Amino acid sequence: MWKLVSRAENYSEWYNQLVQDAGLAENSSVRWCMVIKPYGYAIWENIKDILDSMFKNTWHYNACFPLLIPKSFLTKEAQHVDHFAKECAIVTHYRLKNSEDWKWVVVDNEAKLEEELIIRPTSETIIWDSYKRWVNSYRDLPILCNQWANIVRWEMRTRIFLRTTEFLRQEWHTAHATHEEAIAEAKKMHLVYDDFARNFMAMSSVLWPKPEHDKFAGALTTYAVEPMMQDFKALQAGTSHDLGQNFGKAFDVKFTNDKNELDYVWWTSWWVSTRLIGWLIMSHSDDQWLVLPPALAPIHVVIVPITKNDWDLEKIKEYLSPVISAMENKNIKINSDYFKKSIDIVYKIDDDKTRSPWWKFNEWELKWVPLRITVGMRDLENGNVEIYRRDTKEKLSMSVEQLAWSIDIMLLDIQKSLFEKNKSFRETNTYKVDSYQDFKEKIEKWFVMAHWDWTKETAEKIQQETKATIRCIPFDSSDEDWVDIITGKPSKKRVLFAKSY
Amino acid sequence: MWKLVSRAENYSEWYNQLVQDAGLAENSSVRWCMVIKPYGYAIWENIKDILDSMFKNTWHYNACFPLLIPKSFLTKEAQHVDHFAKECAIVTHYRLKNSEDWKWVVVDNEAKLEEELIIRPTSETIIWDSYKRWVNSYRDLPILCNQWANIVRWEMRTRIFLRTTEFLRQEWHTAHATHEEAIAEAKKMHLVYDDFARNFMAMSSVLWPKPEHDKFAGALTTYAVEPMMQDFKALQAGTSHDLGQNFGKAFDVKFTNDKNELDYVWWTSWWVSTRLIGWLIMSHSDDQWLVLPPALAPIHVVIVPITKNDWDLEKIKEYLSPVISAMENKNIKINSDYFKKSIDIVYKIDDDKTRSPWWKFNEWELKWVPLRITVGMRDLENGNVEIYRRDTKEKLSMSVEQLAWSIDIMLLDIQKSLFEKNKSFRETNTYKVDSYQDFKEKIEKWFVMAHWDWTKETAEKIQQETKATIRCIPFDSSDEDWVDIITGKPSKKRVLFAKSY
Repeated sequence: MWKLVSRAENYSEWYNQLVQDAGLAENSSVRWCMVIKPYGYAIWENIKDILDSMFKNTWHYNACFPLLIPKSFLTKEAQHVDHFAKECAIVTHYRLKNSEDWKWVVVDNEAKLEEELIIRPTSETIIWDSYKRWVNSYRDLPILCNQWANIVRWEMRTRIFLRTTEFLRQEWHTAHATHEEAIAEAKKMHLVYDDFARNFMAMSSVLWPKPEHDKFAGALTTYAVEPMMQDFKALQAGTSHDLGQNFGKAFDVKFTNDKNELDYVWWTSWWVSTRLIGWLIMSHSDDQWLVLPPALAPIHVVIVPITKNDWDLEKIKEYLSPVISAMENKNIKINSDYFKKSIDIVYKIDDDKTRSPWWKFNEWELKWVPLRITVGMRDLENGNVEIYRRDTKEKLSMSVEQLAWSIDIMLLDIQKSLFEKNKSFRETNTYKVDSYQDFKEKIEKWFVMAHWDWTKETAEKIQQETKATIRCIPFDSSDEDWVDIITGKPSKKRVLFAKSY
Repeated sequence: MWKLVSRAENYSEWYNQLVQDAGLAENSSVRWCMVIKPYGYAIWENIKDILDSMFKNTWHYNACFPLLIPKSFLTKEAQHVDHFAKECAIVTHYRLKNSEDWKWVVVDNEAKLEEELIIRPTSETIIWDSYKRWVNSYRDLPILCNQWANIVRWEMRTRIFLRTTEFLRQEWHTAHATHEEAIAEAKKMHLVYDDFARNFMAMSSVLWPKPEHDKFAGALTTYAVEPMMQDFKALQAGTSHDLGQNFGKAFDVKFTNDKNELDYVWWTSWWVSTRLIGWLIMSHSDDQWLVLPPALAPIHVVIVPITKNDWDLEKIKEYLSPVISAMENKNIKINSDYFKKSIDIVYKIDDDKTRSPWWKFNEWELKWVPLRITVGMRDLENGNVEIYRRDTKEKLSMSVEQLAWSIDIMLLDIQKSLFEKNKSFRETNTYKVDSYQDFKEKIEKWFVMAHWDWTKETAEKIQQETKATIRCIPFDSSDEDWVDIITGKPSKKRVLFAKSY
């Protein structure tokens, strides 16, 4: 039996051990770059496949732009020079040569680049360099282009999935003829992300605008996905931007509109990354470790036959054939607004003779398989099977036929109940406060909704004194006439404060 | 109408124009890196999805290893120092800073790496660094791990899809407990590649071993995919290796076998890349440009309604509803040995009012849509539709019901006929020769099967004098007692010579 740290004991250590022992990812020999191991990568593939289908269902498509960006591109957009993070990987040479003793390789100093190349810390400059070639007329618009890519940022404080030097993400840069169309696009895709979070990640809706002083440089509006982790901290899991014509102007991307006038192109941009996996782990998992919504789990059902005898194993497989046939023919049906998805049920018969049943129970508990079926020879006589439901930790005994009939319903029920649990956790742990004294107490542990005077100065004062920041401005927070909790200046709306990763 | 260069006029220019005008890819502003545009990327997504399913059907899985490799890793394997290409992108610094006038960014010389990092020119060193951590016992084997990744090599002579500084590929590194298992794995996956080439790419089988002197450094056997292009040159589109225990030893990856003895791990490795797209284009396309097998085409059917009137457009759509319903419910069914795939039929109704029908005919001809349906109001009265089949350039007139009934069959027929054409082209243009005089004449234009004395010296002499190389040693070339065409030494088997890309 593993020695497991609990969330209450040490949340951070719990996360690190879980990531490692469930076989999701590990630190590599390259500074602060992770290896996403097969089981962790299977979760990313599920996330990617579903999001990609949702993007394609809303008429978007993918392309592939260069990994390397000329240094000069990063200063094309004036606001960029001040704001963008300058910690990045810089390519200066293009050839190695043998050392004099032929035992090693060394950098060939004669192969120095005239202009250094940067490994993309983000791709807008190199993408807009192409859009400039693609766009002449309104007939060439909109461009609804997405890229799945690896990104490198020389991060100083790293943590697997949450912040690493290299990570994977989807970045989406659309170009439009009018601001109305760009706004409509941004709103629609905002709903698509929200839909994915609720229906597939089993997370309550959390995609709201950021305050003015915390927007992406050059953006008219920045939206952020800001879920609550089980340690009551916020985790920014993705951002999206209505960028107006700022970048169109910076990169000089003009087009002839339908009135035959020249105009600059309008831009929206969005991304989510492998950080979503960190978000998933931190949101649903418990002290028995990994918990995943079935819609994104790599394996849905594991069957552990209690025998090492080939003859009995065949009998058990035959006995379970109605269940196996049900798993092969039924699906987990998720009907979201933007994507009707039938997810194949993935099952595994763990008949490895080199491991004991107890080893297997632990292994699949750690790795989270929502349903475990255990069958021994005695069950064949009794006409039953034992089902272990990982989220509620219930053990049920039922007939093979009953199980075959209900297996997809049970998986869907787990998906729904994880969503309800997450929603209620967030709601229960978010407090309205009306005084700074109360704020300072509550913010130590929870999310806080409070009035704010919309100035950067007040936000900064609060951050200095409490380490909490304004995460976002909820759409659904209704108007109230009240005053800022510190300055007493008028406020019409509560905003969300929290400590964050 | 475009001015199209024909293959006979200038094969190389024909390829370049086709890639650009069909919207597949373009050169970027970054030296010799390509942008894969949406239409070209859709072909790569189809290739990737099908190959990925074939790998998963044979129990393989994916993971993600770091983009950056410490310089010292590249010399871990002694044979590597001499053999591997040293043209690669070298990261030496990790921070930019503002220039003194704050208008630019410059490299911060204080942020110099202690050890330089190389952008992966291939991943075996970094992958085996992980395997060393993953493998202790025979229970941890086999590892059947694949990676889809971007690769950077500082190529000097570049050509879109065929050889670029950055390209995309799949690299597969499996680890086994015994050589028998590794050989069986290598043979099985060799058949999977062959299956993909025949059934999806519509190419005749071409995966054979390379001669001893042209193997990958450290490999026991190297297999290569060597198809014939329409200019009669070979294009190495992928290689695969049985690497024995060489790398297991180089990277010190040991395991305890089932007799409780320590042994080194056995390794196989395989890859194919975006070069497959170049291969596809060069193999099937004609002077009217892009031709793709339906199994990999982004769009299968385009409908061009001959009207700009909304009312008539609705009538046309209603008239075509049996065909549209057939396309939504039928599939292109490809039953290969390793993967039974039902490919959804993708259709597009091109009702863009800003473009003329002639513009559309040209556009979809260039971009290769296998079937084009043209319908005007007169067709409604006659009860017919016009079908243009792009590969044979036939125009057929048939009833809507007849079309609905036959549309999947027509697409499958195009798939089969492209394969037959490719196979016959290769067979017709491969000659057996028995004298060096005859060899020198035939090799100027065709593939040649000739006897060879299995020495590196003879192979080099032939290469110097004719620019042709031994591409591979066919499995199915039957034994004959004969002599080398130059040295007169005994030979038992003909090998394949060709000029190559």
